[in-house]
Amino acid sequence: MRRILLVVQYDGTDYHGFQRQRGLVTVQQRLEETIERVLGHEVTVTAAGRTDAGVHAIGQAVAFTTESPIPLPNLVRALNDALPTELSVVSAEQVREEFHPCYDAAGKLYSYRILNREQPSPFICRYAWHVREPLDLELMQAAADKLVGEHDFAAFCASGSSVKSTVRRLSRLDVSSEGELVEIRAEADGFLYMMVRIIVGTLVEVGLGRLSVEEVGWILTGRDRNRAGPTAPPQGLCLVAVSYSEQ
Amino acid sequence: MRRILLVVQYDGTDYHGFQRQRGLVTVQQRLEETIERVLGHEVTVTAAGRTDAGVHAIGQAVAFTTESPIPLPNLVRALNDALPTELSVVSAEQVREEFHPCYDAAGKLYSYRILNREQPSPFICRYAWHVREPLDLELMQAAADKLVGEHDFAAFCASGSSVKSTVRRLSRLDVSSEGELVEIRAEADGFLYMMVRIIVGTLVEVGLGRLSVEEVGWILTGRDRNRAGPTAPPQGLCLVAVSYSEQ
Repeated sequence: MRRILLVVQYDGTDYHGFQRQRGLVTVQQRLEETIERVLGHEVTVTAAGRTDAGVHAIGQAVAFTTESPIPLPNLVRALNDALPTELSVVSAEQVREEFHPCYDAAGKLYSYRILNREQPSPFICRYAWHVREPLDLELMQAAADKLVGEHDFAAFCASGSSVKSTVRRLSRLDVSSEGELVEIRAEADGFLYMMVRIIVGTLVEVGLGRLSVEEVGWILTGRDRNRAGPTAPPQGLCLVAVSYSEQ
Repeated sequence: MRRILLVVQYDGTDYHGFQRQRGLVTVQQRLEETIERVLGHEVTVTAAGRTDAGVHAIGQAVAFTTESPIPLPNLVRALNDALPTELSVVSAEQVREEFHPCYDAAGKLYSYRILNREQPSPFICRYAWHVREPLDLELMQAAADKLVGEHDFAAFCASGSSVKSTVRRLSRLDVSSEGELVEIRAEADGFLYMMVRIIVGTLVEVGLGRLSVEEVGWILTGRDRNRAGPTAPPQGLCLVAVSYSEQ
């Protein structure tokens, strides 16, 4: 019995998110049916993060168990030959039998991209939120700095999730830009439901002058979702990497 | 009566090419129905190049005629508000009444991109041809040099087209790379049907060692389509710019 960890990439535009849903095309379904075709037995894959509909990944981690002796480079090649172009496998490695890609994750890094200019772009808008009004990135970074650290992020968690604790350690929240493309990188030991997109929606309110840096601090301590900014749209979000202390 | 020249961009993945076709979604149809909605009268748009299904554009030129007095910046903004994200307007300008974006074009520049590595990429493969075996770019450039100049390009023209002459002046055919991404830039006074994609398919045969540089010269002079390489797939191709000597 081997436990295999795959790192996968996908363009999430045409998927209804990672997790299997009856009657909808999801990343999990495509992955499982492709692995089953290649290995010839049923599998269930578990992911580090259940990305939502329209969210992308360049470093999603998924694991499954098999008794197949297939060499791992051959597995990667066979899966990539069988997978549709919008979904591909970067690497495969064997991990210990109890390995769980989500519970064992030491940290996750997400990227959120914003195209900040008047003109839309058919190519960038597929992977970025188009915000026409100029953003003040210095104010956004100052507000981001209020959120870095270990806090109760209840104000930045969509209702409907049933986690035990809303405390997370946000180790990094960087606002940078390259030309008209703004990128927000968020790294934490874990993220609440919609947390990155609500943080981004809130930082954009700051960047547009609709919220002050101080208010973001109060929103955090107030723990009220209704006071934070709107949820940023999914297409700007990408799961970049998942890190593990031991595998 | 004003004749308007629009420069437009599109991700061609989900379109059945530029030209209107009954029952299929095309760029022309989307553009015309959006202009009609904004201006309130029927229009017919004419394009510099009728890109095929799956081909992209960042500098396609299209023209139409209107009696509307709408200021051009307002027209651009209104069209971009109404167009789907995969299609957008870069600029609008008034041109002389007899202007024709194809017949009046002095030159066109196309780009063709190839991802040259073992691993596919969900993001790049949407805009590039995935070629796994290593390409010899020096040989490809040497073969490309055989094609530059004014020649009868009948060997690089798909059958089914009914042009009067298959002579074109190819002023530039450059093979370059940035990491694993190979780009072929082709500039000419005009291109035959499928000409760029057949040239690329032929250069890739050279890059893989299946055709020699000399053979490419013989294929050109032989004017036989069956001796040239296969037609490269559409997703790598992008119409970059159309130039006009006067408008």
